[in-house]
Amino acid sequence: MTRYLLEHPRTLVSLKFFGERYGSAKSSISEDLGILKRTFQDRGTGILETLPGATGGARFIPYILREEAEEFIERIVGEVSDESRLLPGGYVYLSDLLSRPDVLRQVGRLIATQYLNQDIDTVMTVATKGIPIAQSVATYLNVPFVIVRNDSHITEGPTVSVNYVSGSSKRIEKMELSRRSLQEGANVLVVDDFMRGGGTLNGIRSLINEFNAHLVGMTVFAEGEFNGNRLVDDYTSLIKVNAVDVNDQTIAAQSGNYLSTVFGTEMGNK
Amino acid sequence: MTRYLLEHPRTLVSLKFFGERYGSAKSSISEDLGILKRTFQDRGTGILETLPGATGGARFIPYILREEAEEFIERIVGEVSDESRLLPGGYVYLSDLLSRPDVLRQVGRLIATQYLNQDIDTVMTVATKGIPIAQSVATYLNVPFVIVRNDSHITEGPTVSVNYVSGSSKRIEKMELSRRSLQEGANVLVVDDFMRGGGTLNGIRSLINEFNAHLVGMTVFAEGEFNGNRLVDDYTSLIKVNAVDVNDQTIAAQSGNYLSTVFGTEMGNK
Repeated sequence: MTRYLLEHPRTLVSLKFFGERYGSAKSSISEDLGILKRTFQDRGTGILETLPGATGGARFIPYILREEAEEFIERIVGEVSDESRLLPGGYVYLSDLLSRPDVLRQVGRLIATQYLNQDIDTVMTVATKGIPIAQSVATYLNVPFVIVRNDSHITEGPTVSVNYVSGSSKRIEKMELSRRSLQEGANVLVVDDFMRGGGTLNGIRSLINEFNAHLVGMTVFAEGEFNGNRLVDDYTSLIKVNAVDVNDQTIAAQSGNYLSTVFGTEMGNK
Repeated sequence: MTRYLLEHPRTLVSLKFFGERYGSAKSSISEDLGILKRTFQDRGTGILETLPGATGGARFIPYILREEAEEFIERIVGEVSDESRLLPGGYVYLSDLLSRPDVLRQVGRLIATQYLNQDIDTVMTVATKGIPIAQSVATYLNVPFVIVRNDSHITEGPTVSVNYVSGSSKRIEKMELSRRSLQEGANVLVVDDFMRGGGTLNGIRSLINEFNAHLVGMTVFAEGEFNGNRLVDDYTSLIKVNAVDVNDQTIAAQSGNYLSTVFGTEMGNK
């Protein structure tokens, strides 16, 4: 039952279904759900809503508690600050983090927690490195995700495309999304791995408008330092990579605005 | 305990750890693990290996049973055969399937089951549409995944690249992988969304050789029809898209060689 609920988040599962699946009486299912509810709460796994009555059942809504979120962000900030991540040109290597199932799982839980009480139909991201984040968030929200691409691909069918100005390089770029992949009026959550000038996120916003869909929010794994006006300001970031000193070979990373946005707390300031 | 084990597959968790985490005696943890072992087995969730003694513990190895695998493949074949998936040029739209958490979860379980008894250090795929499959398989195997790309990206650092001949178009293409992302001697499982001529998989094979790593196996979600010699023959496919008739507006899909490779059975021939 635990496994079934964990694998079907945000879905109302009826007592009848569990009763038939496990060959048990509804009363003992009810009792087990009560135990599970307390366990999920005690361990910070999520909320198990139980609805009474003949049409009742249980719905599991995963979340992460403030303490666990703080611990995770602190750990990631520590890992990102490792100077062996420095790349030529002052870039920071992050790909390994976003390829680890344990990191992706927590990133997914964090972002799903932020949008706990909001209706989301689709998670959207831009190829390539945002995809694993989108998939993880989509798993916790139990909705599909869509991938916006910079290049056309014949197996996507007809697409809708927009031009946008890259915030960092000021170049004009193009992004496109398969027509079939997004419904009109859909509530869209945008996630990405990295944001600097916000040009990509701004492009995504126009693309969402082209589909007559609704932007619920934008959350990125990391934001980089940017001198100038960002093209978007209503975003959330898990971490900030503040300054890379190529001469000193050091990286200054810190917590992003996630904790204050979601829990109203700053790191180390509970 | 169920959740912890499900989230840490292929990892030996000691009785001591569970005892401290849940404040219970080792004997009652042992008893609970015994119940969980039977439940996992009865429901086809996976094997729960329990190791006795002071250094003992439990290791959860997820798998899928033949019946559930057959059911899933049959369902996917049905969905793929839907003629609304036909695209201009005789291509078939599959992106929506590989964006649904429920489909990706089962694809991950199927592929992880195939390599149940093999040592795998990394799952490898090619951008873009193989990524969600790689992530799902990597989650079940509890290993990181790496993404091979056709274009350089400054945040990847130094890369190793190979040229390869695309099996379908006979063009020469280039693929590359960040040096940091793969260790020498690593055991690599390759997954992808679609295979036609096998050129991409052949290119990946040379790339793995360049890293002095070891190819464990190659599994794709779908193989397409190909007239001519495939460049690879040692691959597994979940489904086959056999013939697309643009005049008739029909798609002929069927089960791939997965079931016979893994379970020694063909669909409908138990």
